[in-house]
Amino acid sequence: MDPVQYIQTLASAARAAAGVLAQTPGGARDAALRAGAGALRDAKAALKAANEKDLTGAAGLSEAMVDRLHLTDARIEAMAAALEQIAAQPDPVGATISAINRPDGLRVEKRRVPLGVIGIIYESRPNVTADAAGLCLKSGNACILRGGKEALHSNLAIARVLRGALAACGLPEAAMTVVDNADHAVVTAMCQAEGLIDLIIPRGGEQLIRAVAEAATVPVIKHFAGNCHVYVHADADLDMAERIIVNAKCQRPGVCNATETLLVDAAVAEKFLPRVAKSLIARGVELRGCDRSRKLVPAMKMKKATEDDWRREYLELILAVRVVDDLAAAIEHINTYGSHHTDAIVTESLAAAETFVAAVDSSSVMVNASTRLSDGGVYGLGAEIGISTDKLHARGPMGAEDLTTYKWIVTGQGHVRT
Amino acid sequence: MDPVQYIQTLASAARAAAGVLAQTPGGARDAALRAGAGALRDAKAALKAANEKDLTGAAGLSEAMVDRLHLTDARIEAMAAALEQIAAQPDPVGATISAINRPDGLRVEKRRVPLGVIGIIYESRPNVTADAAGLCLKSGNACILRGGKEALHSNLAIARVLRGALAACGLPEAAMTVVDNADHAVVTAMCQAEGLIDLIIPRGGEQLIRAVAEAATVPVIKHFAGNCHVYVHADADLDMAERIIVNAKCQRPGVCNATETLLVDAAVAEKFLPRVAKSLIARGVELRGCDRSRKLVPAMKMKKATEDDWRREYLELILAVRVVDDLAAAIEHINTYGSHHTDAIVTESLAAAETFVAAVDSSSVMVNASTRLSDGGVYGLGAEIGISTDKLHARGPMGAEDLTTYKWIVTGQGHVRT
Repeated sequence: MDPVQYIQTLASAARAAAGVLAQTPGGARDAALRAGAGALRDAKAALKAANEKDLTGAAGLSEAMVDRLHLTDARIEAMAAALEQIAAQPDPVGATISAINRPDGLRVEKRRVPLGVIGIIYESRPNVTADAAGLCLKSGNACILRGGKEALHSNLAIARVLRGALAACGLPEAAMTVVDNADHAVVTAMCQAEGLIDLIIPRGGEQLIRAVAEAATVPVIKHFAGNCHVYVHADADLDMAERIIVNAKCQRPGVCNATETLLVDAAVAEKFLPRVAKSLIARGVELRGCDRSRKLVPAMKMKKATEDDWRREYLELILAVRVVDDLAAAIEHINTYGSHHTDAIVTESLAAAETFVAAVDSSSVMVNASTRLSDGGVYGLGAEIGISTDKLHARGPMGAEDLTTYKWIVTGQGHVRT
Repeated sequence: MDPVQYIQTLASAARAAAGVLAQTPGGARDAALRAGAGALRDAKAALKAANEKDLTGAAGLSEAMVDRLHLTDARIEAMAAALEQIAAQPDPVGATISAINRPDGLRVEKRRVPLGVIGIIYESRPNVTADAAGLCLKSGNACILRGGKEALHSNLAIARVLRGALAACGLPEAAMTVVDNADHAVVTAMCQAEGLIDLIIPRGGEQLIRAVAEAATVPVIKHFAGNCHVYVHADADLDMAERIIVNAKCQRPGVCNATETLLVDAAVAEKFLPRVAKSLIARGVELRGCDRSRKLVPAMKMKKATEDDWRREYLELILAVRVVDDLAAAIEHINTYGSHHTDAIVTESLAAAETFVAAVDSSSVMVNASTRLSDGGVYGLGAEIGISTDKLHARGPMGAEDLTTYKWIVTGQGHVRT
């Protein structure tokens, strides 16, 4: 079928389902989530069989990608448990955000409602299919999921199970659809389905996200990766600083909230750099430093950093290191080279912390804490649909509430405009 | 200058100014707004002289457009008064939206901050220049304003006055810039200035907004016009219904929250239609009805409505009229043909009101009130930057708070991820 027609058909069905979901009480949506969890557990064999087909077709993919694609018993259990956790969260829909009574008796209420239909475009990991569907259902939205073609059999199998659970609970199956058309033109059609799809969330590499943002006329919330920083201020507790940078770099280097650049205040560089360099090198981290850093640790293995290193998101055990003159220089570096994702200061100075928090233009600013803590779970959002690098609508970790909008409800007794 | 370079230069200066504004207390921003109001009053002669140049060049424009372009003493006073009203509003910046302490002592705060740099693309009315600049300054944002070329002299004169007021108050002039390059490529460059401009708000005709949305990679909040409805339910107070539809259609027909279609429940059509038709025709309204409507008021002048009429935004004294079988049919009509802007029900039935409010997918849903009341002032937002027809970030009337985002501030005592 023509990709535009194909998406129009899917999205029209999703839109009708969204109309039903918007009027379904939270308890019914939660019951469907729990039924979905049970159904995933019951369908382990079928899910693994479908996954096997994807793995067989995965020749040529990197080992890391094959690993991400793999559905094991433990991962199926984790998907089911995530749906149960989502069900246990408070209902994000229906709350009154604000309400006023005007002097003439008109009541103006701002009430939280679902967005409608959400399109999610993502890569390889099949668990995203269940997580995204769960968060959309929780927030009363229908969803259209377009995963990578390498995971198509797995994604379709998950969808079959979850749609069965929806139907068993009396909810429309079209509330959740996995796109079974691998044609790339389908992605473009989704991005341009104005009036049918209310929001597109692309999750994956920078190239995918950029392509989606460029093609889209439907609103997009982008999830770019992070070039995160830890700045060790002149008044830092250096033991704490070492603990934080080691965690921020090494605990899980392949994710967006891992730190990529260490900034050290000139006032403590001589004291701090040798010990932290030793500690990081012992953990297998490759250091790339500015000239001042390299002079302070001549005995250490530290490559020379280039301008390009300040902009890199390594996503591996490499750390750029720079000595900065002061707080202002650290802020300037972060706002110039950073990706406005998550940046940290280590300091005992209240004034320095306040200046850093106010001036660093990032979605998360950490004081005496690791950048790795930038996370929906840590922030109390429950499950997370992603970490938005946009400023509009949702910034930083996004939970189910961020998949809602609001409606103004105005109640009068024959009020007119004069 | 090359349009891309031109915008990069402007936007870089605006970005630096935004960094200063983000750290300027509310009192200082309010003082600059009041200084701007005074300066506009003092500069009446210069503003009118600049406006005279635009009016001289306006040959060929419609009378309505020339009227909108005209800066009179009263309109200059209204611009000044609007800035003072904006200054008097509470500061939208800096509030704590939420804050939690995690079990391990980590504090997670969500704090409201300015967006950064806002680009506004608009047509003819020069007062938008002062209003938009005022709301951006109030919310701590820098702005780049691109008005119509027919109003360029007026817009530049207003900008000169307001920039002078900023400078006199110690704030950066680059916080507010009117684009003086009439090349249309500048609009495209603004829409694609990712990383320099945080939000584009187009205000004007549908064609302008669509062109901006299609060209943009920067987030856009669209302000499309409205195809608004009044539905008279079976249990309506018919006197109230007549008062509301007359107001919604006639009080100011040329604006987006004026009503374009009247839906009458079959149960009351025979009783209601003749009287309301008479009343509307007496006020010069042209009626275009469905077959059932026309049969019920054979003596009235009622043209036959076509499918196209259900979708039209007339913006003049024309009203489409349709008899619907019941509440469900009214909702179906509105969600199918409407523009999701503002729609009203007139009813004494609580159940009907609740169903309508839940099922109509519009930014404002009115119960027993005129659609004309869909307005930032009425909703208590103070001055209004526009009425968003998007669902993301801001929906319906947008005030200064809608020009902000938030930042996560995470404070630990050496907290790391385990």
